[in-house]
Amino acid sequence: MSETDAPSAQPTLVGGIDLGGTKIEAIVTDAEHHVLGSARHPTPTEGGPADVANAMAAALTEAAKAASVEPSQLRGVGVGSPGVVDAAAGTVSHADNLPGWSASFPLAAALKSALGTKVALGNDVGVATAAEFELGAGRPYHSLLGVFWGTGIGGGLILDSKPWHGRGGAGEIGHMVIREGGRRCPCGRRGCLEAYAGRAAMEARARRLHDRGVKTRLFELAQEHDRDRLTSGIWERALEHGDRLATKLIDRAVDALGTGIASAVNLLDVEAVVIGGGLGVRFGEPYRARIVAAMLPHLFNDSRPPAVLLAALGDLGGAYGATLLID
Amino acid sequence: MSETDAPSAQPTLVGGIDLGGTKIEAIVTDAEHHVLGSARHPTPTEGGPADVANAMAAALTEAAKAASVEPSQLRGVGVGSPGVVDAAAGTVSHADNLPGWSASFPLAAALKSALGTKVALGNDVGVATAAEFELGAGRPYHSLLGVFWGTGIGGGLILDSKPWHGRGGAGEIGHMVIREGGRRCPCGRRGCLEAYAGRAAMEARARRLHDRGVKTRLFELAQEHDRDRLTSGIWERALEHGDRLATKLIDRAVDALGTGIASAVNLLDVEAVVIGGGLGVRFGEPYRARIVAAMLPHLFNDSRPPAVLLAALGDLGGAYGATLLID
Repeated sequence: MSETDAPSAQPTLVGGIDLGGTKIEAIVTDAEHHVLGSARHPTPTEGGPADVANAMAAALTEAAKAASVEPSQLRGVGVGSPGVVDAAAGTVSHADNLPGWSASFPLAAALKSALGTKVALGNDVGVATAAEFELGAGRPYHSLLGVFWGTGIGGGLILDSKPWHGRGGAGEIGHMVIREGGRRCPCGRRGCLEAYAGRAAMEARARRLHDRGVKTRLFELAQEHDRDRLTSGIWERALEHGDRLATKLIDRAVDALGTGIASAVNLLDVEAVVIGGGLGVRFGEPYRARIVAAMLPHLFNDSRPPAVLLAALGDLGGAYGATLLID
Repeated sequence: MSETDAPSAQPTLVGGIDLGGTKIEAIVTDAEHHVLGSARHPTPTEGGPADVANAMAAALTEAAKAASVEPSQLRGVGVGSPGVVDAAAGTVSHADNLPGWSASFPLAAALKSALGTKVALGNDVGVATAAEFELGAGRPYHSLLGVFWGTGIGGGLILDSKPWHGRGGAGEIGHMVIREGGRRCPCGRRGCLEAYAGRAAMEARARRLHDRGVKTRLFELAQEHDRDRLTSGIWERALEHGDRLATKLIDRAVDALGTGIASAVNLLDVEAVVIGGGLGVRFGEPYRARIVAAMLPHLFNDSRPPAVLLAALGDLGGAYGATLLID
């Protein structure tokens, strides 16, 4: 191959897929990280991993079409996945929010076969943190903690300008204990941050209290908007309606986030904290400021708190981060 | 200078001083980290930083004498100091356990003038962690959390085989919150790990309960052994006597340590945890095992807990670590 062939022989476009519990976001970007095409598909709620992989391939194919390119012409496709990701093996296991996906499934191979290009896997929260570090709110910093406030509470770390994964399982800020012997967490343990601030835990608590006769419009609002879960939008509407239970649960979540993030900062003294996730992105600035206020009483070095910023890439952070998996 | 002069022109012996709230440990080591001389002096409880510096110089001079060397012949002297250490400026401030030492004091310059060799400063917990990593229990690992269970609860981090200091204040595991709105910590905040497990906090609580009529032999034992504080040895004796209050407070401390360390591990997924400090070293193996048992219910990846080890360098870890500050 001569040097003059190189530009056409080395494709510059890459794909990124963010696999979420409710939706699949796919994008195609150029070398400057501009989005040339995108697609959003619902995540299958029935079937198994192969069905999810098919839906992912369909979303990516649609995004590629919008970018006027075949998937096979992409330099590669990165995937941010929930569950336990083995990037080297190309497998995902224990993706408990996805249908029938507890055993290990060869996701990279399935997608490579469907798309005709190389596929790289990463942890969803890890790639979203990397995206904020490389392209988003974290760009000015060398160390940051990403906090993704959604169904659960995910955490990602950049230390010394590099992702920190520990032995592969780092970042579980949602399972830092903020109250020994406290509320039961969806993980089965007690007192975790996620037990107070995760959307799934808040929904379970709202339902229990509602069943016991506590008044709330949360479930009516979900029905009116044809949701079978309390989405971030439903929580927002309930707060706008002044719903007392929703307000109380979200206030508690903000306090818990402040405590947990402050504990993490006391341990790591990072330069910046970036707050994303479905609830984090939707609630935006007023809640960022409230979380900072809830952190301050627990910060050991309270004269110089870290910068606390909203995720700049919003809902697309995961898909952007997935594209960064392709060199 | 010819090459043959090099061995005598480049001294290989170094000094290390661990400045503690109650004692000053000084050692002189050779290039293989063997201790050739050591000395232990009490930390002055009156006067000011200059008096402490004089006591440090005296201890190091005695250690050098035992090693048959003049302090000025050492390649340098490292110091592990409490308080806020500015290594570049050679100053220490906010050393609140030392007499009259809140403002910044030029400790490196004072010692250099007294000893006639270069002086390097480091944070006491940081150097003790580095010592366990380089020479002690942490040698087989690339990432570790040092937990120093003493008057307070200090923490040190080695990540990717390098110390992690964040913006200079990392490692405050003692001020991770284990119980929102919980007990008042000596730092003034609420619910910190140190509020439950630090020796100073436990002594304050024991005294309050004793004043309210709760029976305990803790303070009698301290008097009998001529201590004005509840030292690690006094706590150990009280436990041996089956003292109920001491047992209850130490049990609570072990639970708190398990919770706090598990939270840190959930965030960082380090390979190893090394437990040192006055109480950690004195209580030894049975308490190491108890702390592990207290961690397990809170570990997110409980199928593969980190190695949890006792500090191998014992009381000398801080002084060893100080010698490592000299290249």
